[in-house]
Amino acid sequence: MVIPSLYPLIQAPMAGAQNSELTIAVCQSGGLGSLPASQLTPAQLATEIAHIRAATAAPFNVNFFAHHMPVLCSDDSRRWRKKLQPYFDQYAIDADQIQTGVLRLPFNHDYLTVLQQYRPEVVSFHFGLPEASLMAAIKATGAMILSSATTVAEADWLVAHGADMIIAQGWEAGGHRATFLGQDHHFQMSTMTLTSQLVKRLAVPVIASGGLSSASEIQAMMALGASAVQLGSAFLLCTESRIHSLYRQALLQATRSPELTATAITNIFSGKPARGLINRAMRELNYCCDEVAPFPYAATAINAIRAKTEAQGLVDFTPLWCGQNLSGAAEIPAHEQVKRLMGL
Amino acid sequence: MVIPSLYPLIQAPMAGAQNSELTIAVCQSGGLGSLPASQLTPAQLATEIAHIRAATAAPFNVNFFAHHMPVLCSDDSRRWRKKLQPYFDQYAIDADQIQTGVLRLPFNHDYLTVLQQYRPEVVSFHFGLPEASLMAAIKATGAMILSSATTVAEADWLVAHGADMIIAQGWEAGGHRATFLGQDHHFQMSTMTLTSQLVKRLAVPVIASGGLSSASEIQAMMALGASAVQLGSAFLLCTESRIHSLYRQALLQATRSPELTATAITNIFSGKPARGLINRAMRELNYCCDEVAPFPYAATAINAIRAKTEAQGLVDFTPLWCGQNLSGAAEIPAHEQVKRLMGL
Repeated sequence: MVIPSLYPLIQAPMAGAQNSELTIAVCQSGGLGSLPASQLTPAQLATEIAHIRAATAAPFNVNFFAHHMPVLCSDDSRRWRKKLQPYFDQYAIDADQIQTGVLRLPFNHDYLTVLQQYRPEVVSFHFGLPEASLMAAIKATGAMILSSATTVAEADWLVAHGADMIIAQGWEAGGHRATFLGQDHHFQMSTMTLTSQLVKRLAVPVIASGGLSSASEIQAMMALGASAVQLGSAFLLCTESRIHSLYRQALLQATRSPELTATAITNIFSGKPARGLINRAMRELNYCCDEVAPFPYAATAINAIRAKTEAQGLVDFTPLWCGQNLSGAAEIPAHEQVKRLMGL
Repeated sequence: MVIPSLYPLIQAPMAGAQNSELTIAVCQSGGLGSLPASQLTPAQLATEIAHIRAATAAPFNVNFFAHHMPVLCSDDSRRWRKKLQPYFDQYAIDADQIQTGVLRLPFNHDYLTVLQQYRPEVVSFHFGLPEASLMAAIKATGAMILSSATTVAEADWLVAHGADMIIAQGWEAGGHRATFLGQDHHFQMSTMTLTSQLVKRLAVPVIASGGLSSASEIQAMMALGASAVQLGSAFLLCTESRIHSLYRQALLQATRSPELTATAITNIFSGKPARGLINRAMRELNYCCDEVAPFPYAATAINAIRAKTEAQGLVDFTPLWCGQNLSGAAEIPAHEQVKRLMGL
């Protein structure tokens, strides 16, 4: 077994959509459960990991972002708020009163301390890898380190910088592109083409990720030579998912009417490109907006509008992250979903 | 067998890159060879089909475009030529002297007459299907009719309008998107996600197409439930391919250095979005250019620049059509490539 679980199945970490409850359910079912840490303080992370360790002896994965935190200059902030001003006006939002919410933070020494205490078996990263000294310290805990590539060049970089396995994240994946070497997402390869090329090229195991939603797609990726698969959207509707009820309704509607459903990649919700169901904000702000504030700061201003619209029962400004294939997503407990996905 | 050939393998029709020689070689090897007709006159088509019938008793496919031919208004033409004027200046091209070359034409009654005479076993379309009376007349010849879908809605439309099988053309496919119901190509599904969803939804067989380059990818698509596969890029370097030597060199370089290779979708070479290796014209004209003349007229003006640059040994303005996966492309005879692809 390449990943330390019964099945070669990783539940993708989904910040904002889940907590340790989903992680635990997947771990107890024979998959590798993941805990997204990018929106948790180190203290919150410790609490969540303690929950997991108390509930299961199975290995699990903790996921961090590895982006470089830019300084938010006032020009960037002003330009983005100016772009959103029509919506501030429409929803009677005083832009000067907007509070910075929880920002997505990169891995750091405080998180490392938590890892050293709890020693999760797997640690995964998005947007590259932390610097060498942090990598060495994580490796010293015994953890296996995973990171996502969206190009062949990124996969080469990740292997050279110490990743033990590579997640091939394809075009169809929901949520943030892992891209960290600057390629335009319009050039992104699909899960099949990227996985296939990485399997032939790399000496380390490759995990296919993006657009996988049922047993037949998983079998297809294994036929391609993937050592494991990582699925997120397939778990979004599960009992243990913690998504907003409006988000859930939008996903359910998409599963019922795939002929009317399209996802797109947008940067407007965070500053970095990510895939979700198309909604009003994405259409009106042209999906990838030049005026957007840098990641992760863009979220602050648009979340103020999101709060107002969600209060009206609308998902017009809600990031409806999901991949291109919701066909297998279902409102069932995660342990049933793991069985379905493994064809059991 | 779903398609009338020994192997469930269709060689994708590639207008401008092949003639009947490749069709024949694939047919003789147990695959279904295809002949692209969109840039042939009816008389040329008859000659090519006669070559095929003389060389092999095996079934074959003739491919047509089914687009609506717009009237080229002088504003459209002027806007596009204005955009290209800096290149006309650079290469000393007199825009008033540019001759309209071979335009891609839609299926019509003259082509039908050729089909009625030679009765190819399979007829495939790109950009939808011809009108009902033409469809009925083709069906009366006994031909099986295929067309490509890029969305679930397009697949539903094609089945309702008489297609016998659906080619699921994914994001990673080289050449023109088959899109005919207007969806922005940025929202396009991958071969895996589209094939998987169509297999679950449609009563007719589904053919996976896009990004397939070796036996393992074909096996993956069959695991997904595809009834057959269609591959183009895998045949581009074959002995029977008729691509320009500069195009061939660019593809060879891409197969050698996948870490440096990216493809993108562009509308600048014809007016409709199509995927190929990134080159200078795509970068400088921003890939999908608002000022481009409508399909198929855009080709005329840019081909004048292409001729000048190719004479200098440059592929700066050459459409280097190919899909996202060249890993299996090789300079071998097509019969060897068919064996490789079928894992024989």
